[in-house]
Amino acid sequence: MEVTRIERIRKKLHEIIYEADTPFGKLFDVILLLLIIVSIISVMLESVASIRFLYGTELAIIEWIITGFFTLEYIGRIIAVKRPLKYIFSFYGIIDLLATLPAYIDLLFPGWHFLVSLRAVRLLRVFRILKLAHFVGASNQLVVALKKSRLKIAVFLFSVIVLCIILGTIMYMIEGPEHGFTSIPMSIYWTIVTLTTVGFGDITPATPFGQFVSMIIMILGYGIIAVPTGLVTAEFMSKDRKVHENTQVCPNCSADHHRDDAKFCYHCGHTL
Amino acid sequence: MEVTRIERIRKKLHEIIYEADTPFGKLFDVILLLLIIVSIISVMLESVASIRFLYGTELAIIEWIITGFFTLEYIGRIIAVKRPLKYIFSFYGIIDLLATLPAYIDLLFPGWHFLVSLRAVRLLRVFRILKLAHFVGASNQLVVALKKSRLKIAVFLFSVIVLCIILGTIMYMIEGPEHGFTSIPMSIYWTIVTLTTVGFGDITPATPFGQFVSMIIMILGYGIIAVPTGLVTAEFMSKDRKVHENTQVCPNCSADHHRDDAKFCYHCGHTL
Amino acid sequence: MEVTRIERIRKKLHEIIYEADTPFGKLFDVILLLLIIVSIISVMLESVASIRFLYGTELAIIEWIITGFFTLEYIGRIIAVKRPLKYIFSFYGIIDLLATLPAYIDLLFPGWHFLVSLRAVRLLRVFRILKLAHFVGASNQLVVALKKSRLKIAVFLFSVIVLCIILGTIMYMIEGPEHGFTSIPMSIYWTIVTLTTVGFGDITPATPFGQFVSMIIMILGYGIIAVPTGLVTAEFMSKDRKVHENTQVCPNCSADHHRDDAKFCYHCGHTL
Amino acid sequence: MEVTRIERIRKKLHEIIYEADTPFGKLFDVILLLLIIVSIISVMLESVASIRFLYGTELAIIEWIITGFFTLEYIGRIIAVKRPLKYIFSFYGIIDLLATLPAYIDLLFPGWHFLVSLRAVRLLRVFRILKLAHFVGASNQLVVALKKSRLKIAVFLFSVIVLCIILGTIMYMIEGPEHGFTSIPMSIYWTIVTLTTVGFGDITPATPFGQFVSMIIMILGYGIIAVPTGLVTAEFMSKDRKVHENTQVCPNCSADHHRDDAKFCYHCGHTL
Repeated sequence: MEVTRIERIRKKLHEIIYEADTPFGKLFDVILLLLIIVSIISVMLESVASIRFLYGTELAIIEWIITGFFTLEYIGRIIAVKRPLKYIFSFYGIIDLLATLPAYIDLLFPGWHFLVSLRAVRLLRVFRILKLAHFVGASNQLVVALKKSRLKIAVFLFSVIVLCIILGTIMYMIEGPEHGFTSIPMSIYWTIVTLTTVGFGDITPATPFGQFVSMIIMILGYGIIAVPTGLVTAEFMSKDRKVHENTQVCPNCSADHHRDDAKFCYHCGHTL
Repeated sequence: MEVTRIERIRKKLHEIIYEADTPFGKLFDVILLLLIIVSIISVMLESVASIRFLYGTELAIIEWIITGFFTLEYIGRIIAVKRPLKYIFSFYGIIDLLATLPAYIDLLFPGWHFLVSLRAVRLLRVFRILKLAHFVGASNQLVVALKKSRLKIAVFLFSVIVLCIILGTIMYMIEGPEHGFTSIPMSIYWTIVTLTTVGFGDITPATPFGQFVSMIIMILGYGIIAVPTGLVTAEFMSKDRKVHENTQVCPNCSADHHRDDAKFCYHCGHTL
Repeated sequence: MEVTRIERIRKKLHEIIYEADTPFGKLFDVILLLLIIVSIISVMLESVASIRFLYGTELAIIEWIITGFFTLEYIGRIIAVKRPLKYIFSFYGIIDLLATLPAYIDLLFPGWHFLVSLRAVRLLRVFRILKLAHFVGASNQLVVALKKSRLKIAVFLFSVIVLCIILGTIMYMIEGPEHGFTSIPMSIYWTIVTLTTVGFGDITPATPFGQFVSMIIMILGYGIIAVPTGLVTAEFMSKDRKVHENTQVCPNCSADHHRDDAKFCYHCGHTL
Repeated sequence: MEVTRIERIRKKLHEIIYEADTPFGKLFDVILLLLIIVSIISVMLESVASIRFLYGTELAIIEWIITGFFTLEYIGRIIAVKRPLKYIFSFYGIIDLLATLPAYIDLLFPGWHFLVSLRAVRLLRVFRILKLAHFVGASNQLVVALKKSRLKIAVFLFSVIVLCIILGTIMYMIEGPEHGFTSIPMSIYWTIVTLTTVGFGDITPATPFGQFVSMIIMILGYGIIAVPTGLVTAEFMSKDRKVHENTQVCPNCSADHHRDDAKFCYHCGHTL
């Protein structure tokens, strides 16, 4: 019957596009990864004036080949998936669309050429393929540790921003527009540049008092970098420490997280 | 009676201004937070010459509305509180006053316009409202960890400052005024810029020997950043550990380091 | 017999060159270390135009003496070792060859003078001598800790690079070639300069929106430095802990985490 | 008798100068601390051209008063101490002499005025007085932690320096004198500036390949800062962990560092 044949094609397509265990699925992922990398490099090269001048046509051809493949892949994904709308409006669905659209927009509205840089969004597609790679475990550990300390990190960030606004305003009052601190937002920009120890040097304090306050800001920044580091390290460690607790579960009350050397349940006193 | 009516108004006012559990109290806090943010943004925008030129009048109107609200709020707080003097001379009382005063001073003494930047002090009011938010717990943990290691941090800071003064003097002797190291304080400023890895580049060593000493200063700075980080991390960790264990000692076998939620000794099974 | 005499010389040579316990072996290592240091300093000095002009001949003589010694040493190593081919194609074999070749190439092809800087490769020979030093233990600990967390570090580095490419493209779209962000690769270079808190200041954002995004990049960079630090610290700690405890389990009560030097179970007093 | 009177004066002097428990000793320390601070500030101010021009005489008078006091104190210390020679050639003895000498040299040899900056050495005297302060405990902890990890820090520093020499030579070959990398030492200076994330911006890579290598150097520097931090943190923590060991000593074999929950000596099996 017709329906089962279509169904069979759809199933095959799903296997190739969404799965990574079959030879075709693996090949598809490798080709996709290569195309994404080629595409990103071509976007970068095109932005270099001299290369665009010399190899503009070649880059345009590569671009159209990649856009073609990505378009076919996008259509394939919509066909292969059971609930197409859910895919279209998912995070990766939008990324996949944004990976193809800029080329078509450029064709239709040549004036919107600046949108072409949006193609860099293709880089995010790399994460989809890497999802299949085995190092996601390590990545997950990082994400979990960061998530656990996100409240403390938020408090820290908020305090740093308030500090920068106040110090920026003080520096604006001290140095003033004549030394490059043209406005409070500019002064806050300078304070962040200084506190984070970036130190561009596009604006620098010129008055002795401004330099004195700068010294305090720099030493502050040098010191408070310890806070996020301490937070994240403590989080990594506490995860690590759970190693010292065993995975035993009390036969009586099912409490877990027992000490390695525990002989009795800390919760109900039952022998472990 | 008159007195009870006033008392009732005062109580209602206290509920709105100082409490955050009632609907009116919550609404008041949200409005206050918004007004503070609007006020801070308007202070920032006013400092940008082009915006001040175009929207000066609008910003002045916003400013007067906010100042009016803050003034009413300040009066309200004095009325609502039982001991007004204690409030007036408290930290937040002074902040609240400073949040309104600059506008009036600007009206009375137009020459003192520079004081207008003091309005940035309003930002500190944010902390009062956040006091009510639930993330104060996380903030307290940070503050406790920093407080515990404050003596060590003080020793570290003092050593860094002494180091910077000595290295700054050495650099002044090596490079001298002809290479931008115009005086010892300037040279100390440069040393702090370098040691904290900020590196503005407004002053840079020009003699080979000066560059050699700079290299030592930079590697020093790169290395000793480990000290505050190590201190704070160790503090976070030790606190972290203590949170999970209590100070109880088993009445039967004297085992300690019990879990916070332990009801029985992990060692002998005795009731804690 | 001839053969045994050659064999005896080879053995003696092996003792001097490859061993560090005998007086001759020690002397050889010290001389080699000194020559390497002298050679590196002479390469550095030769690159300074004024010194090359004044002491060019002296440096060339020193260079030829060192090249002569290194050549003899290289021949000696080939003779002394049992499997010369294995040595020649080993890491240190290639380094040893590269330490002598540039001088001869310079003699034969004077036009390839730029290759002379390759002599700096001699510095890597220092590691061979230090292999014998006692602080390799500490070095090994470092290497082991870094190796263990290499997967997490790779994930972190990959994420940072993806982040830099995306942020770099955004900054290119915001600032554009007129403010120094001449191309996407240039913009990525700037993003890395900013995110790592280096902050050269050769390119700086000029538009308010560009400065706003820069602030976010800087605070991001200031924050995520905590991640590698946390990873490495956690690795050092977990290794550190394991060094002090062994994996022995008490044959009587099965308690573990015994001290390395424990001879009796801390829990039941049974002999381990 | 004459001798006992002198002896009494000497004892009194010793009490005042060297001790901090008596009221006079405390007063002496406070005066000394103040004079050192005044002296350091006056040295700094004198180096500022405009201040030297205006208040040169006043600063000279202050300088002579302080030098006079320090001279008297130096003589007093020699008299009060039992073994004057040991004091004279001790670290603080030399510092005390260097604190007075520059003024006299300036009087005798006006041409050697540059030596006047040596007066900054007085700052080191602060440490002597602080020796008495109670925060030395915290300072000792820092010093002990740093000392314990000094071998690993040395290995780390050596590796960083070798890395900088090699990367500096590579950058010299890539960029060359025409882009500011005038010599290998200059190029190494730039590499250290970049690797330690200082980033002055006095020299910046101009070729695309140079910028590519710079990116690698920056990310390297951003990553390996984790190593010293991890080392010092691990050291702080391991000290901290000793808290988990108790101070009990085995009654049988005197072994210490027992686990908190140990009931038997890990060394001889004796009941604790």
